[in-house]
Amino acid sequence: MKRERAVRLTIVGFGHVGGGVAEVIMRKHQELKEIYGLDLRIVGIADLKGVTINEKGLSEPEIAKFRDGSVLAGMSTEDMIREVEHELMVEATPTNVVDGEPGVTHIVTALESGRHVVTSNKGPLALQYRRLTELAERHGRELRFEATVGGAMPLISMIRNNLAGNRIISIKGILNGTCNYILTRMGEENLPYEHVLREAQEIGIAESDPTKDVEGIDTAVKLVILANAVFDMDVTYRDVKVRGITEITPDALKLAHDAGYAIKLIGDVDDEGRLEVAPRLVPLGDPLNVNGTLNVATIRTDLAGDITVIGKGAGPIEAASAILSDIIGIYAR
Amino acid sequence: MKRERAVRLTIVGFGHVGGGVAEVIMRKHQELKEIYGLDLRIVGIADLKGVTINEKGLSEPEIAKFRDGSVLAGMSTEDMIREVEHELMVEATPTNVVDGEPGVTHIVTALESGRHVVTSNKGPLALQYRRLTELAERHGRELRFEATVGGAMPLISMIRNNLAGNRIISIKGILNGTCNYILTRMGEENLPYEHVLREAQEIGIAESDPTKDVEGIDTAVKLVILANAVFDMDVTYRDVKVRGITEITPDALKLAHDAGYAIKLIGDVDDEGRLEVAPRLVPLGDPLNVNGTLNVATIRTDLAGDITVIGKGAGPIEAASAILSDIIGIYAR
Repeated sequence: MKRERAVRLTIVGFGHVGGGVAEVIMRKHQELKEIYGLDLRIVGIADLKGVTINEKGLSEPEIAKFRDGSVLAGMSTEDMIREVEHELMVEATPTNVVDGEPGVTHIVTALESGRHVVTSNKGPLALQYRRLTELAERHGRELRFEATVGGAMPLISMIRNNLAGNRIISIKGILNGTCNYILTRMGEENLPYEHVLREAQEIGIAESDPTKDVEGIDTAVKLVILANAVFDMDVTYRDVKVRGITEITPDALKLAHDAGYAIKLIGDVDDEGRLEVAPRLVPLGDPLNVNGTLNVATIRTDLAGDITVIGKGAGPIEAASAILSDIIGIYAR
Repeated sequence: MKRERAVRLTIVGFGHVGGGVAEVIMRKHQELKEIYGLDLRIVGIADLKGVTINEKGLSEPEIAKFRDGSVLAGMSTEDMIREVEHELMVEATPTNVVDGEPGVTHIVTALESGRHVVTSNKGPLALQYRRLTELAERHGRELRFEATVGGAMPLISMIRNNLAGNRIISIKGILNGTCNYILTRMGEENLPYEHVLREAQEIGIAESDPTKDVEGIDTAVKLVILANAVFDMDVTYRDVKVRGITEITPDALKLAHDAGYAIKLIGDVDDEGRLEVAPRLVPLGDPLNVNGTLNVATIRTDLAGDITVIGKGAGPIEAASAILSDIIGIYAR
């Protein structure tokens, strides 16, 4: 029914998320053609070890070879972005909140070369949102970043599309699954912070250096992306008032629970300029009170009232899902 | 920044929802121009008492006059749909699940006259989904109906846009706020069904004839719209296996609660053809366990995992919000 359209894309950063994107695009190739008329071809992949390209589209064996260490093209990542013909770059290198690199350079290079950009990288958006969105606009290209906030949970595009016509008054949410897991377990088992942190590290839910999560920095970075994208602010994560979860005790959780509340690390942004991350009391019956590693956000609007979205905040396939829906959103509306 | 585009629309059915649409469009006229480049003009309104038209756009005083009973045009609703020049009809007459009328006739007339249709009327979609969507396609017009399921809660368009690329495995949810209110109050106060029903009727949450809500028919109708729109089924609400809430006792709610569950009226549709409305046990910590008049749906997907959306299921401004975002969706992407 739909006219078919070939879209050539490159993937920059080939860790869990980049690999997940490749896997999903290969697995769904036929389905995406049939449903959206999109013939997605990965024509180049780059990561720290080098670059592989195939202008007709990399095959699954070629991608597997690259994953196993075989590098085919003697070119830099930037040269690939500039010189290999393609329509869209997926930027999936790790988040760096100090200067946003190498993500910023990749995104700037891609937009200046006329590529659309879909990214899961929070650093560039949290540090240089205005510059990057203006650059995209100047070049008539799209910059989409649903995967940066809340993983597979649709938030930015939901607000833009499905709540169109609404004024957004505030967004409040749990945007970090590691903190939610730690607080949930501390409350359920009456265990101290350090104990549960170690447990979370053992099962891979917390990193060996958990600072970014437990100090609220990751939440602040996501909040800033929402502030810029939804509230048209021009802030970086350094503008956020942040308090993490390291000083919360099992006693505090128990006292709160007995009074009908949970304690959650909440990111909070509103149309009056509030921009805060802190542990907050959440009524037990409130839609925001979700447990385990789940993420949640409540969007307060002028017409639709409060809308809450709950989903998995992390995971490579979840991020790939958000990236894929961004790609489809650019072409298939 | 955006080019401005005038869109003329008619509103058919001028009760709470139709009136809410007019109110919101008047109130947001300037904002919608600035943000979406949409200059929305209501050129005709029709309800049981007659029709009022103004090809340049009805003014607020003209609309108020019509609301107060002054009918200006000597024409039928169908003549207005056919003869008054406009691009989009909002159909907001009450739901009739016996034959879908007069909604079906209005929608057919509008599509055949080349108008897009946005509706909050569940009857036509629950009874003649396939016929109406095929008619829309044949005439190259859009038929949107976000307001029919879950009020302001974005569900159908969220699945189509923001979960694009995902295979939808199942949708489970509380789609009727009246039942949720009754079950919530019965559980909280340990009160029998009849008592809480009367209370709900007194405060306007249940209708004087509550059959459609408490017997699960309203939930079944919404489930059928999801089944047709998301799972591409071709069913009517008569195909749904339905059990309502009238036989639930406070004792059952208490037993369930002591075991860690709530009892909720759940609509359930999946990709294997399941189509059921029945009271079900929901774990207390589950995102589906929302209280009061809230609606909720959990969408199970192959990539994004489980996504849950919670919102107000009813209310004229909430329905108007869904209708407005459908209108914007047709023009402003």
